[in-house]
Amino acid sequence: MKRRVEKVFRQLENPPDALLLANATDPFIDSSFFYLFDVPSGLFEGSVAVAFPDGALHVYSSPLEAETAHQAAKDDPSVTIHVAPTSPADPKSLERELAELLRGVSRIGLNFRELTHEWYRRLDKMRPGTTWVDASAGFRKARVTKDAAEVERIRRAAEIGSRVGREIPGWLAEGITELELAAQIEHAMMQAGASGRSFTTIVGFGPKSAEPHYYPQERRLASGDSIVCDFGAWYRRYASDITRSFHFGRHDDEMARVHTTVEAAQAAALEVIRPGVPGKEAHLAAARVIDASPWKGRFTHGLGHSVGLAVHDGYSMGPTTDDPLEEGMVVTVEPGIYLPGRGGVRIEDDILVTKNGYEFLTTTPRGYLEVEA
Amino acid sequence: MKRRVEKVFRQLENPPDALLLANATDPFIDSSFFYLFDVPSGLFEGSVAVAFPDGALHVYSSPLEAETAHQAAKDDPSVTIHVAPTSPADPKSLERELAELLRGVSRIGLNFRELTHEWYRRLDKMRPGTTWVDASAGFRKARVTKDAAEVERIRRAAEIGSRVGREIPGWLAEGITELELAAQIEHAMMQAGASGRSFTTIVGFGPKSAEPHYYPQERRLASGDSIVCDFGAWYRRYASDITRSFHFGRHDDEMARVHTTVEAAQAAALEVIRPGVPGKEAHLAAARVIDASPWKGRFTHGLGHSVGLAVHDGYSMGPTTDDPLEEGMVVTVEPGIYLPGRGGVRIEDDILVTKNGYEFLTTTPRGYLEVEA
Repeated sequence: MKRRVEKVFRQLENPPDALLLANATDPFIDSSFFYLFDVPSGLFEGSVAVAFPDGALHVYSSPLEAETAHQAAKDDPSVTIHVAPTSPADPKSLERELAELLRGVSRIGLNFRELTHEWYRRLDKMRPGTTWVDASAGFRKARVTKDAAEVERIRRAAEIGSRVGREIPGWLAEGITELELAAQIEHAMMQAGASGRSFTTIVGFGPKSAEPHYYPQERRLASGDSIVCDFGAWYRRYASDITRSFHFGRHDDEMARVHTTVEAAQAAALEVIRPGVPGKEAHLAAARVIDASPWKGRFTHGLGHSVGLAVHDGYSMGPTTDDPLEEGMVVTVEPGIYLPGRGGVRIEDDILVTKNGYEFLTTTPRGYLEVEA
Repeated sequence: MKRRVEKVFRQLENPPDALLLANATDPFIDSSFFYLFDVPSGLFEGSVAVAFPDGALHVYSSPLEAETAHQAAKDDPSVTIHVAPTSPADPKSLERELAELLRGVSRIGLNFRELTHEWYRRLDKMRPGTTWVDASAGFRKARVTKDAAEVERIRRAAEIGSRVGREIPGWLAEGITELELAAQIEHAMMQAGASGRSFTTIVGFGPKSAEPHYYPQERRLASGDSIVCDFGAWYRRYASDITRSFHFGRHDDEMARVHTTVEAAQAAALEVIRPGVPGKEAHLAAARVIDASPWKGRFTHGLGHSVGLAVHDGYSMGPTTDDPLEEGMVVTVEPGIYLPGRGGVRIEDDILVTKNGYEFLTTTPRGYLEVEA
C-alpha cells in the first residue's frame, strides 16, 4: 500500500526516517497496522510493520499467519513479508531483523496512541539513541479521508447495518428482552456478511433508551416503551455505526414529537455538511433545532465521529470542532434527545462527505415508527 | 475490592506507593481496571483507577458512567468514585484531582502491558519527577489464580460455551458456510446469557480446519470435511474458550484416528495437571502422545493458557514453561493435530486447577463424532 504509506508521511510536519507500528496481544492491536498492510483476515498479535518515505513496507509476521500475510502481499511489490518468531518468548530473531532493516536510521515515528508502553520500552532498549517521535497525528489525518477501497468496505458494512435496521420492527414483541434483541441484531448482521459487531450493541427500552451509553440487560419490552438500537457491523476490518429509534405499543404524543425533532435536527446538520465547513457548524445546526424545541438542553453529546478501521476513527464533530469536514470523510450524524426516567430518541447515519455535500451510506428509514404491541 | 488491591501489592517485590491504571479509547482498555474495580457493565474509556497499599481504591469515571460506577461501589467502603470529565478534550479537572490524591507520592506502579505510550507521556508530564515502575507482573500474578467470584463467572461462561458446543452437531448440514456456523454459535451464546463472544470465532471446514488461527469465510460444508470450532463467551467480563472438532459425512479413517490421538493427548496432559507441576510437563505429556503417533510434529502450538478477564490471561503452557501450575488457576488444555491441505483436530477445555488435580469447567463430549451428511 505505497499510496497509504506516502499519505501518512505527507501528513507529518518533520517526517521521520521510518515509521514503525507494533502490535501487542489482542486487543492491543494497532488499527493503523491494517491501514498500511491491507490483509483481510488474521490477528497479527506481536507483528511489526516498518514503512519508509519511498512507500516501502516491511511486515514481520509470526509463522502462524505467514501464509495469510504472503497472500495479501503477493500483488503489491512495495510490501515485503518477513517471517519472524514474534512471540515474547523468542524475540531475538525479530530484534536482529529490525536492527538490520533500520541500520543508519535515527528518527523513527511511532503511533503513541496505540502502542503499549511495554512495546515502547522494548524498542527503546533495542535501539538506544534513537529519536522516537509521535506520528499518531499523521496516521489519524491520513486515515480520516478514505480512499475508494475503504469507502467500498464501509459502504458494505453500512448496507449490512441498514438491512438489519429495516428488519428490527418485525422483531419487536411484548416481553422480548433487550439482550435478546441485541443478540438478534448481531446474528442478522453476521448472516448478512459481517465478520462481527463493530462495538457492543446498545438496545435500550423505556427509560433505558434515555441513557446514551447503556448496555442491554434483562428488561422486557412493554407497551408504551421507546426503543433505541445502536449497532454496527465489521466488514473486512471496516466499521459501520447506525442508530434507529422506535416506539412500541401505546401512543405517546411527546415521544412522537421528540422523534420528529431529532429527525429535523439531523436534517439541519446534513444541510450544512460539505467540504470546508468546520465540524462545529454541523453540530450547532442540529443543536439549534433541539434548543428551539421544548427539549432544550437534552442533546447531551457530540453530533458524530468519523468511522473506518475503528468505530471512532480520529475525527469528532462537537460544539468546539474547528477542523473542517473534508471530501472523502465518512462520519456519523447522530443527534438525540434524552428525557431521563422516561425515554430517548437518537437517529444516526453514516455519510460520505462528497465534493459538494454528502451521500448517505446507511439507508434505513428514519421517520417515526410506532410498532403495534 | 480491597483483597484484590492487596493481592496485587503482595506480588510486587519492591511495592510502589500507589498503583495507577488508565484506560484510553476502546479497545485500549486495561483489563486489570476491572480486576480492581468490579463493575458489571460500562466501557470506562478514559477512566483512571488509583490503588494504595492499604487496599483503598479511587476510580475516576466520566459523568456518562458515573451512575454505573456508584452502583458498583455502593457496598464496598474501600472504593471511592470521583466524577471527572476524563475526555481528552477536558483533562484539566482529572489532572487536578490526581495531583491532590497523589500528593507526596513518589513511586507509582503502572501496567506497562496495557497502558498506551500516549497515556504514559501524559502522566509523566503531569508529574515530572515521579518514579514510574512496571507493575504488570504484579497484576499478572495476582490475576492468574482466581478468587471464588471469578471462578463462578468463568464457570458460567464455560457452561454457556459447553451448552452451545453440544448443539453444534445439530446445525451441521451440507452447504452451510463457515461464517453462517460462526454466526449461529455466537447467537446461541448470547441467547444463553453471554454478553458477546470472547474472541473471533474460528470455524474451519476441510483443509481450513488445519489452520489453527483461521477466520471463517464463505467455504461451504461438504461430505468428508473435518470441522474445527473454537469459540468462547463473555459472562460479566470473564471469558471461556472451548474447541470441539467434528467430522461430516463420508468416513475418513485417518481423521478418526487423528481425533482419538488428540483426545489421548489431552487425557495425558490432564493426568499430570495439579498444583506445583511446571506447565511444560503438561505440554510435554500431550506432545509425547502425538509424537509417538503417525502424526509426529503436527502439534504446532502450546498446550494452553490461563483465561479470566482476558482470553489470554497471563500464563501459558508450552514446551519451555517452568512456572508451576497453582491452585485456583483456570487454564485451557488444547492439543491439536494439523495435516496441511487435509484437515485438523483440536480439543480444548477450560479446567480449574484444584488442590489435588483439576476440575472440568467445560463439559461438551470430546469423543470422535461423525455427523451424517
